[in-house]
Amino acid sequence: MRITGTFLDEISVDIPHQNWGEKEWDKDFAAMKVMGIDKVILIRCGNKRWMTYPSKVLKEERGCYDPPVDLVKMFLELSEKHGLAFYFGVFDSYEYIPKGEFQKELDINKKIIDEVWSAYGNYSAFKGWYLTHEFSRLNPKAMNVYSTIARHGKEVSGNLPVLISPFIDGRKLGIQNAITPEEHQKDWDEILTELSGAVDIMAFQDGQVDFDELEEFQIINKTLADKHGIQCWTNIESFDRDMPFDFPPIKWEKLLLKLKIAEKAGYEDAITFEFSHFMSPNSCYAQAHGLYKRYCEYFGIDIPEGICK
Amino acid sequence: MRITGTFLDEISVDIPHQNWGEKEWDKDFAAMKVMGIDKVILIRCGNKRWMTYPSKVLKEERGCYDPPVDLVKMFLELSEKHGLAFYFGVFDSYEYIPKGEFQKELDINKKIIDEVWSAYGNYSAFKGWYLTHEFSRLNPKAMNVYSTIARHGKEVSGNLPVLISPFIDGRKLGIQNAITPEEHQKDWDEILTELSGAVDIMAFQDGQVDFDELEEFQIINKTLADKHGIQCWTNIESFDRDMPFDFPPIKWEKLLLKLKIAEKAGYEDAITFEFSHFMSPNSCYAQAHGLYKRYCEYFGIDIPEGICK
Amino acid sequence: MRITGTFLDEISVDIPHQNWGEKEWDKDFAAMKVMGIDKVILIRCGNKRWMTYPSKVLKEERGCYDPPVDLVKMFLELSEKHGLAFYFGVFDSYEYIPKGEFQKELDINKKIIDEVWSAYGNYSAFKGWYLTHEFSRLNPKAMNVYSTIARHGKEVSGNLPVLISPFIDGRKLGIQNAITPEEHQKDWDEILTELSGAVDIMAFQDGQVDFDELEEFQIINKTLADKHGIQCWTNIESFDRDMPFDFPPIKWEKLLLKLKIAEKAGYEDAITFEFSHFMSPNSCYAQAHGLYKRYCEYFGIDIPEGICK
Repeated sequence: MRITGTFLDEISVDIPHQNWGEKEWDKDFAAMKVMGIDKVILIRCGNKRWMTYPSKVLKEERGCYDPPVDLVKMFLELSEKHGLAFYFGVFDSYEYIPKGEFQKELDINKKIIDEVWSAYGNYSAFKGWYLTHEFSRLNPKAMNVYSTIARHGKEVSGNLPVLISPFIDGRKLGIQNAITPEEHQKDWDEILTELSGAVDIMAFQDGQVDFDELEEFQIINKTLADKHGIQCWTNIESFDRDMPFDFPPIKWEKLLLKLKIAEKAGYEDAITFEFSHFMSPNSCYAQAHGLYKRYCEYFGIDIPEGICK
Repeated sequence: MRITGTFLDEISVDIPHQNWGEKEWDKDFAAMKVMGIDKVILIRCGNKRWMTYPSKVLKEERGCYDPPVDLVKMFLELSEKHGLAFYFGVFDSYEYIPKGEFQKELDINKKIIDEVWSAYGNYSAFKGWYLTHEFSRLNPKAMNVYSTIARHGKEVSGNLPVLISPFIDGRKLGIQNAITPEEHQKDWDEILTELSGAVDIMAFQDGQVDFDELEEFQIINKTLADKHGIQCWTNIESFDRDMPFDFPPIKWEKLLLKLKIAEKAGYEDAITFEFSHFMSPNSCYAQAHGLYKRYCEYFGIDIPEGICK
Repeated sequence: MRITGTFLDEISVDIPHQNWGEKEWDKDFAAMKVMGIDKVILIRCGNKRWMTYPSKVLKEERGCYDPPVDLVKMFLELSEKHGLAFYFGVFDSYEYIPKGEFQKELDINKKIIDEVWSAYGNYSAFKGWYLTHEFSRLNPKAMNVYSTIARHGKEVSGNLPVLISPFIDGRKLGIQNAITPEEHQKDWDEILTELSGAVDIMAFQDGQVDFDELEEFQIINKTLADKHGIQCWTNIESFDRDMPFDFPPIKWEKLLLKLKIAEKAGYEDAITFEFSHFMSPNSCYAQAHGLYKRYCEYFGIDIPEGICK
């Protein structure tokens, strides 16, 4: 089992920006390709007042600032150049759903999907949608929003696949009542009933439970995905949750262990959050350079001249 | 509007030291010069028991340790070599003013100013004083100390300019009652009445308020500076306050936005806290290398061979 | 006084892993050698479910995961190649002693010592044991465990030396009642009475007290060590405890100050926690590259081509 996809987190909530320009991204896409990555997923199209492309919708409705560069265009062009598939991450207001304003979250996302498909739908690399909302427990009204957003994306785009990347409400989040495997199974059976037909791929984040609990949860996820006819990928976190600051790249041993657990559980594919900070030979974190080398070494991947520093 | 000055934070409170020697600093001054920086401001001359030059005053009165290198001398010499102006940052005990021992804070600073001017006043690069005390709200007794320190600096040095870099008591500090624009205006009208004639330049830190509040505060500051006959610069923070650890370099998009706001508000000059960690091609943080490149790209500055790694 | 030893913290509790392979470690051992390091100390052989070598004991009793590489073998081979002495760090469950299950901590460590000596005792670089448990105050039952583990190590190995690296319960730990010099002296007089004959070398960590308190504590430690016939080394922390995140490399000035204090107190040797992250020209933290250069500069050590980046 290998990692074949990565999120692009250049519009970040909690990971420092690397301040890369097109030249640096080009180099990084080349490094991804060497490692076997064939798809990139834009984590979100906007955050607070920042946006990834000059969106009229986000500017008018959320007061967003004009971005200095159109990242969506740049990532699509680089995807075409390097032969990668691009998934577009929609918008999470972090505001409407907590306030119970479900219709607003739905409406702005429909407009964004229309705007984006109209502007970028002709790029051959545009291969899917990513439902950027991260959730873990059953919230029926929110699930209905999510499935409606997902269906809208599929409708306008000739049925392009929709990916979600939920999380397990596990003990490593520091919460008081971490979810039990039984509760998780129950919630997600209902959630997938709602999402089935709207969402094509489910890629659970793998870092919120302890390493020795992961296998049990991964098996539950795979069983449920099979039952509901959804593809089951893993989203291997390549950052380390066990360190005193958030976040350095993960230890290779931990990444490998999680990869083996997903393989054992029969997962169909693996993506990571995320390559450019935590696994890349171009990362600002030198620990990531090591991780890239260890990964390539393990899988017998030759690293061409010029990829590593 | 461009950044033409930077603090030197080699005697740091909360930014890890880079452990540079003269060769590394020489290289960094060269990189500053390329970017258009023409002045450097020593953030403070001493902190706790550490000091930037072998000060008898600080050793005797504060029990400071002999420094392994005379940073003031080194920075002055490098300033002369690279054609930069040097501002000397005075001493904040972080102790006397909170305890109400105003006279002590004043006395030690007068002695330091005398000592420093006597030792380094002949350097042609010695072009000004920096009042290192950072404040935000009206404290009349403290303001009197500050203006007296400032006047003493001007007196001994043939009226060299005095710079302050205060902060807005804004919501990004995590305080309960962030200051309103009205309160800020009222406080600073009184503060500048006291400081007028003693302080020549005011360069507010620009990171303690939200990006969408900044313009309003910047306009207030500029209006007050004009009213009181003080030059109004901006101190653009080049570190990011929105990340889970303190502090990585800022995203280029944020820096650019803040630069444009200051330009729109009619500011006369821009300095940054600070180049060597957060914007430099030599920084320990690789995100800073990107920031330097983006900045130079944006302003059409050619980076000579050997400046970037 | 120079630093002649370092911990190896590749199985870390709170320092991010660098993801080095054998080639990178080989290069780092070469850099150590240049700086004057002649011994390396494996900080611990296992942590949680991670282990440094394929230990049957740890796998069966603690459910540890098979490691992707045998670090003990690799470090021993690199130690022989570079002419360094290797100290093996035993196991701290972080569980049995807090629970009062003293016998369990003792039993697992005896088994590990037997297993390790049988597997690696023939390496000529295997020169000592490190009692990985870090403690500061008197706990008679725990001390008895420690001395018994230490004696067992000595017995199976033909009396190889045992090193401990305790800490002072000082104010920089943020605790309410930091220990006084008097209490520290009293506790450690009793502790060393228990450990005498079992432990050969005591290397106190030097970062938990303020810089201006360090000399007093260091003198106490040296006096007690002499009284009880134990060698007294210092464990100079090369990371900085004064910064807002845990941990960057320390400022050279601070390291030098601590080295001078240990020298003045008559310490016999100095080791550091630890070279590879905080002092190495290969570290992921570029501040460490500076620290290495400053250290070598200060002691007039020529750095051969290829050691620094």
